[in-house]
Amino acid sequence: MRTRLHFLKKLNLRAISKLAPPETAIVFYDRRLLSAVPGFRNFLKSFPHAFALTAGEGLKTLESFSAISRKVHLRVGENATRTWTVLAIGGGSVGDFGGFFASVYKRGLRLVHLPTTWLAAIDSSHGGKTALNLSGAKNQIGTFYPAVDTILVHSVLRALPLSNVEDAIGEFLKISLINGGLLARVRGESAERAQMLWRFLPRAIEAKMRIVRSDPIETKGARQVLNLGHTFGHVLEMELGLSHGRSVALGLLFALDFSETSGALSPKSALSIRQWLRSFGVVRDVVKDRVLKSKAQKLLRSDKKRDHGDFVWFIVIRGLGRVERKRVAVSQIMAVVENRGWLR
Amino acid sequence: MRTRLHFLKKLNLRAISKLAPPETAIVFYDRRLLSAVPGFRNFLKSFPHAFALTAGEGLKTLESFSAISRKVHLRVGENATRTWTVLAIGGGSVGDFGGFFASVYKRGLRLVHLPTTWLAAIDSSHGGKTALNLSGAKNQIGTFYPAVDTILVHSVLRALPLSNVEDAIGEFLKISLINGGLLARVRGESAERAQMLWRFLPRAIEAKMRIVRSDPIETKGARQVLNLGHTFGHVLEMELGLSHGRSVALGLLFALDFSETSGALSPKSALSIRQWLRSFGVVRDVVKDRVLKSKAQKLLRSDKKRDHGDFVWFIVIRGLGRVERKRVAVSQIMAVVENRGWLR
Repeated sequence: MRTRLHFLKKLNLRAISKLAPPETAIVFYDRRLLSAVPGFRNFLKSFPHAFALTAGEGLKTLESFSAISRKVHLRVGENATRTWTVLAIGGGSVGDFGGFFASVYKRGLRLVHLPTTWLAAIDSSHGGKTALNLSGAKNQIGTFYPAVDTILVHSVLRALPLSNVEDAIGEFLKISLINGGLLARVRGESAERAQMLWRFLPRAIEAKMRIVRSDPIETKGARQVLNLGHTFGHVLEMELGLSHGRSVALGLLFALDFSETSGALSPKSALSIRQWLRSFGVVRDVVKDRVLKSKAQKLLRSDKKRDHGDFVWFIVIRGLGRVERKRVAVSQIMAVVENRGWLR
Repeated sequence: MRTRLHFLKKLNLRAISKLAPPETAIVFYDRRLLSAVPGFRNFLKSFPHAFALTAGEGLKTLESFSAISRKVHLRVGENATRTWTVLAIGGGSVGDFGGFFASVYKRGLRLVHLPTTWLAAIDSSHGGKTALNLSGAKNQIGTFYPAVDTILVHSVLRALPLSNVEDAIGEFLKISLINGGLLARVRGESAERAQMLWRFLPRAIEAKMRIVRSDPIETKGARQVLNLGHTFGHVLEMELGLSHGRSVALGLLFALDFSETSGALSPKSALSIRQWLRSFGVVRDVVKDRVLKSKAQKLLRSDKKRDHGDFVWFIVIRGLGRVERKRVAVSQIMAVVENRGWLR
């Protein structure tokens, strides 16, 4: 099934009501939106079955899923049928939670996403992955359940703080590096960040969706190229506590180091891509962005994209718009970590 | 995806290991099988990741799902990947639980069912429905997730008590009434019950699967014919506490009453089908099998196959092997309940 995208300037009740008819919609929303987005409280008044959520990883536990599901069922269980819609309004955690709920409540309701962070708008609200955590391990419970509609609202995305834009840049640069056509358009772009993201949003989403469609439930490996920048990015995220966006951006720099070292990419091309990333502010802080050898090794070995034993699937950059999935020994990655100055 | 069926005489470790390789299988089993099925304890020894479950509705709560998922993740989470298999060995509740777990753990593992009750063998382990309960309401959480393989083992089904056979007869007669070809073969059958069920199992499953394939996620109404006997059957099950099997069998008698009264079925045909059902022991106990008017009405109004307001989708019998889904007023059903002596 193909998710339909809708780009709106403002929180247009009329347009949104057509996609999620208020009387038969279960709305989950990040409670912070009430104060952060002008007009949101008023917008919500039209939806009789709206549930405020506290965004964050705490939302993604089975306990919170259980408590919220009961609450929803108590309120709408008698009337709701599988033709009802779940409308998830929020960032990554609200989308993951709402998507999972929609996929299992009464064996599946219609799902509509309205992402409110740039990161969710560009990445997590597309591709159909829903997720809860299990015993603190991220995304161990979930389904593949693409939204029927995803609604992108400029004024809502604009209303949120600037840091939010920075969070999305990593994934945006990643998908641009994967997709040559998008990259060609983005290079030389000098607009203000949020403006640029909004302008390229349709193409960035389409670039991701093209890959997702070739491997919708991630069984063929094709989808794994979306993991570009994530293998070492996760190490940085876990060990240094950096944001996901910043970690992925730095992970792209590491992927360049690795690709160059392994001979997949010429030093000249690596330099050119590095400069391009720098123009978006992606530079290493050589003092801070360093990890401990033992921890890096341990984290790489527990990578979810790992193959048997000490190998992981690593996405190598072979050129602009040309990436490739390779089975790589953890020791080979560690050698690059060491030689390229990523160690504390 | 088409579920492959495997019919085995005995609990053949070699054959089963091919479908669920022991080292990468998460086995859920009804703990009662340890004493009820000769050789089961020994069979289990080959599976390093086996989890005993206490079958019943208590297993299908979100709390028990959460506790068991944690336990499994703690034991195998580091190694398990989406190529692993969940092998669910048990009756309906173990299958519902194991199927749901398989559909959401790591966004979906391979699922293999080994049903150990006749009811699960003939009905619940086919068609891909998985389920948990929510606040006591049955099957409100679930997925459509067909097994890759379903293994039917004669010695295991035979090992369980006779009451178990009776439980399956209702669903067996139901699917026979829906499928003319199967019905023609079953009529005149005089073998011992368990022997008959085993002999007709492949055809009964295929008859159900043909309907499921035409409407795999129950969006078109076609699948609803499988609800034959269930509308009033559920009323009997809820109000009189009868087993599901017995309730469905009596529900078939009610469907005959309704079909005859509404003119869909001639009195002659109704009589002939009634006599056929009687030959399987399906007869009303006119003293016991009676419901209260107010309760029956309330239960019918909360039927999950209800349409808007006071209408439900009722499966009418038009002849042998000919059934039809009709939108019917609750009051019309109640009139038959009253006039045909189903009221206390």
